[in-house]
Amino acid sequence: MNKSLEIFDSTLRDGSQGEGISFSVEDKLAVVRLLDELGIPYIEAGNPGSNPKDMELFREVERCKLKHATLVAFGSTRRKGIRAEEDKSLNSLLEAGTSVCCIFGKSWDLHVTEILGTTLEENLNMIRESVAYLKSKGKRVFFDAEHFFDGYRHNPQFAMDALAAAVEGGAETVVLCDTNGGCFPEEIKEVTRLVVERFPEVKVGIHCHNDSGVAVAGSMAAVEAGAVQVQGTYLGFGERCGNANLSTVIANAQIKMGVQCIPEENLSGLTQTARELAEVANLQLPNTTPYVGASAFAHKAGMHADGVLKNSCSFEHVSPDVVGNERRFLMSEQTGRTAVLRRIHKLCPGLDRDSLEIRCIIDRLKQMEMEGYQFEGADASFDLVVRKELHRYSPSFELVSYKILDEQPVDDTGNSATATIKIRVNGQLSISAAEGDGPVHALDQALREALAQFYPRLEKSRLIDYKVRVMDSGDATAAVVRVLITSTDGKRVWTTVGVSADVIRASWLALVDSFEYKLICDREAKD
Amino acid sequence: MNKSLEIFDSTLRDGSQGEGISFSVEDKLAVVRLLDELGIPYIEAGNPGSNPKDMELFREVERCKLKHATLVAFGSTRRKGIRAEEDKSLNSLLEAGTSVCCIFGKSWDLHVTEILGTTLEENLNMIRESVAYLKSKGKRVFFDAEHFFDGYRHNPQFAMDALAAAVEGGAETVVLCDTNGGCFPEEIKEVTRLVVERFPEVKVGIHCHNDSGVAVAGSMAAVEAGAVQVQGTYLGFGERCGNANLSTVIANAQIKMGVQCIPEENLSGLTQTARELAEVANLQLPNTTPYVGASAFAHKAGMHADGVLKNSCSFEHVSPDVVGNERRFLMSEQTGRTAVLRRIHKLCPGLDRDSLEIRCIIDRLKQMEMEGYQFEGADASFDLVVRKELHRYSPSFELVSYKILDEQPVDDTGNSATATIKIRVNGQLSISAAEGDGPVHALDQALREALAQFYPRLEKSRLIDYKVRVMDSGDATAAVVRVLITSTDGKRVWTTVGVSADVIRASWLALVDSFEYKLICDREAKD
Repeated sequence: MNKSLEIFDSTLRDGSQGEGISFSVEDKLAVVRLLDELGIPYIEAGNPGSNPKDMELFREVERCKLKHATLVAFGSTRRKGIRAEEDKSLNSLLEAGTSVCCIFGKSWDLHVTEILGTTLEENLNMIRESVAYLKSKGKRVFFDAEHFFDGYRHNPQFAMDALAAAVEGGAETVVLCDTNGGCFPEEIKEVTRLVVERFPEVKVGIHCHNDSGVAVAGSMAAVEAGAVQVQGTYLGFGERCGNANLSTVIANAQIKMGVQCIPEENLSGLTQTARELAEVANLQLPNTTPYVGASAFAHKAGMHADGVLKNSCSFEHVSPDVVGNERRFLMSEQTGRTAVLRRIHKLCPGLDRDSLEIRCIIDRLKQMEMEGYQFEGADASFDLVVRKELHRYSPSFELVSYKILDEQPVDDTGNSATATIKIRVNGQLSISAAEGDGPVHALDQALREALAQFYPRLEKSRLIDYKVRVMDSGDATAAVVRVLITSTDGKRVWTTVGVSADVIRASWLALVDSFEYKLICDREAKD
Repeated sequence: MNKSLEIFDSTLRDGSQGEGISFSVEDKLAVVRLLDELGIPYIEAGNPGSNPKDMELFREVERCKLKHATLVAFGSTRRKGIRAEEDKSLNSLLEAGTSVCCIFGKSWDLHVTEILGTTLEENLNMIRESVAYLKSKGKRVFFDAEHFFDGYRHNPQFAMDALAAAVEGGAETVVLCDTNGGCFPEEIKEVTRLVVERFPEVKVGIHCHNDSGVAVAGSMAAVEAGAVQVQGTYLGFGERCGNANLSTVIANAQIKMGVQCIPEENLSGLTQTARELAEVANLQLPNTTPYVGASAFAHKAGMHADGVLKNSCSFEHVSPDVVGNERRFLMSEQTGRTAVLRRIHKLCPGLDRDSLEIRCIIDRLKQMEMEGYQFEGADASFDLVVRKELHRYSPSFELVSYKILDEQPVDDTGNSATATIKIRVNGQLSISAAEGDGPVHALDQALREALAQFYPRLEKSRLIDYKVRVMDSGDATAAVVRVLITSTDGKRVWTTVGVSADVIRASWLALVDSFEYKLICDREAKD
């Protein structure tokens, strides 16, 4: 096994073949920057031959001034029956201007005869000549042997011949692809070992898909057998069930196998990179993602929370800070009082574990959870609940009424919603109206205006994230929704939650908590 | 390797320790029914000692009349320093009334001394006596050796002694738990093999967590080494990064390894079970879930779509119908025209691949995707777009205006929203008003009423799912939202989509598509 690995990220190519993934050119540049910053050595940026947006990316990417990464352009071997020089797709790889090209070719005989419709011999020529052509133009060439493991199973001789053709053409690396994701690690390991032995003159890579749920394990098995390049996508995006998740592969290899993938000092950037990348892809990073997910070090069972507080290695396989993640203790029926107490104690040190107050708080939290509340992501609302139960809270304002009108067609302001709000602050009425491009936007604006004269500091607070989750979605438009709002005042970031069958009211509740929390924190900071 | 496996599902116990998972008693009964229906042999239904709701479940579950499954009650070995008979938690296991109990005990010396705070010898007594006590009461006992692999790495002798104590006490099965999820398949396989050899008189089980992204591979590695029970959760729910995903394990083992897990005729129920279970858990089943996810057989790259159309095994590791899933062709920049054409051809056979019409449709789809539309899950809206571009669509009604008023406080009807709507049908005005417990609910009701006199058949159509997705959520309450609505008329199920910065307008667009689609289908069915 080697002491270091070449990590090859294909988020922008194979990743964008995943359902629901769609990157603009600006998004792609952001992804390149993120991966480069982390120290990923190879970034497959796109397929210039098949997608015009990708060619634009290759032109734009020079702006990025990469520190670590080498960009790779992806394409395929030449078409059957023509010369490599004449192949449009191969030539577009040259146009992309990267120093490395990765081209895929067929290594499963069935694909050659049934899908391409040509002879096995011509396919070998296509591989050899395509690699040689790119090589003659000064490119480094990686050869992706598509369906290598399936091909090997059906016709080992031909699969090996395909690799040999790439090696003869001058490939620097031959990459064994489990394109359909159906192989198990054991088989991947055995076959990879044979390839490594057979072709000592080139590097061997691995490219796994997750259709059997074992893409990470398959990649690691290949590394154990001598593969030195691992292809995948940073968050596992990809065709069908996705590719090997590189954030997991990097952490597994570097922390546990002692194999270097990225600069050691960047390991603690794994989590932040994951979150920013998910943001760019406009996807929720699954909480359960190994190492980098929000739940990866979140303890819910009471016994686990207790154990971790005594000795963190008791329920954590690695320390969260190694990958830049953090430990959390969740609220729930299973949560021991220890974890809840820990959070309550931060607010009011000195409360007894068995006190009436603690019991009231826990009862209230459970009741709210029954209504659809969840405080796992909403620390600020959690704090407010605790304060209310302890009678350490007096509201900064009181709602008298609001009215929201949303209509179509819209008038010439372009705004479809108008909100009128009446609140009382210290006995004084404040009435205001505002418009917005949706009902919640209008309500937010109106509330801000109504509060402004009393609490000018609220001007600095702004909402940076708004999420709507429909619960019991089977009740359709009458379903209960949970709204999460994240706010910032430039220094702090806090999240609040509201629940109602009415999306406007749910948003209102979260908005109110957001403003109240900001005012309380400011007041306490001043004290 | 054995020819069959005992699948042990812990969705209701370990699964409910996952972040965001919370089951009511009714939910739990639904989960038990689903898993039993599929043919899962062991269902760990809860921890009656630590959670009163779980005890209620054990009382209620008799209503279920199980066909295949044996229920299991979960708990731990007795507390240190008392007799097993005196242990409240052990006795609550008896009270639960199941024929099988699963108890966990420590097999890592560090946990005994640091977390439990007792001696290694007392821990062995706790294991032996607890198992023996349950056994003496006529129970079958599975022993979960917590942290077995970590324990074995630190003190192999003690880890083996812990298993020996359980075997001496009369355990039927010893289950090796990778509680922290930090072990790789290779290590799991080696250690499992040693245990299988050492304790031929009992069955050996495996319980993996996914903190290293290899829980499925680890479980399979243990099976290869002779384990006969696999513990996990059907959709991978569980503490931190979750447990081994049993839907994947079952498919891998039964389809690819020839190891029987559930009755053969139920394999095609894997997907439906997954979707219903996710529904009960009120979670979105990740599209990329192997075998059962919506994307598991979804082809986006043009070349993949083309290949699958020629020979499905070219880009599918198993046939989707084996697991009850289905093949889909997605729309996107990468999609070859073949797949789009295929969908369009269903609507209007005979259109030429290179025709102006096809180009117009694709341009329109791309433009809508830029606005935030996605048709991957919204076939009905896709159909309507195609019809509109081909001028084969005339709207059944036309919106003149709607006005929605949402207010707090609510009047004594309890409904916070009122909608007024004015539409025109065949030149005739129809005006109606309705209330609802949220703005979208009110709008839905008003539109139905306005349409009822013209299209009485719409009465049969109802909404069964409503989803809101905030895009660019960084724009907070002014962000663009995408609304998906799924409807049924008892025969068909269809999904429509709407996009706007105004959640009400986005819902309106999806609602309109839903009604229009229903009317078109009815009209064509009649023709």
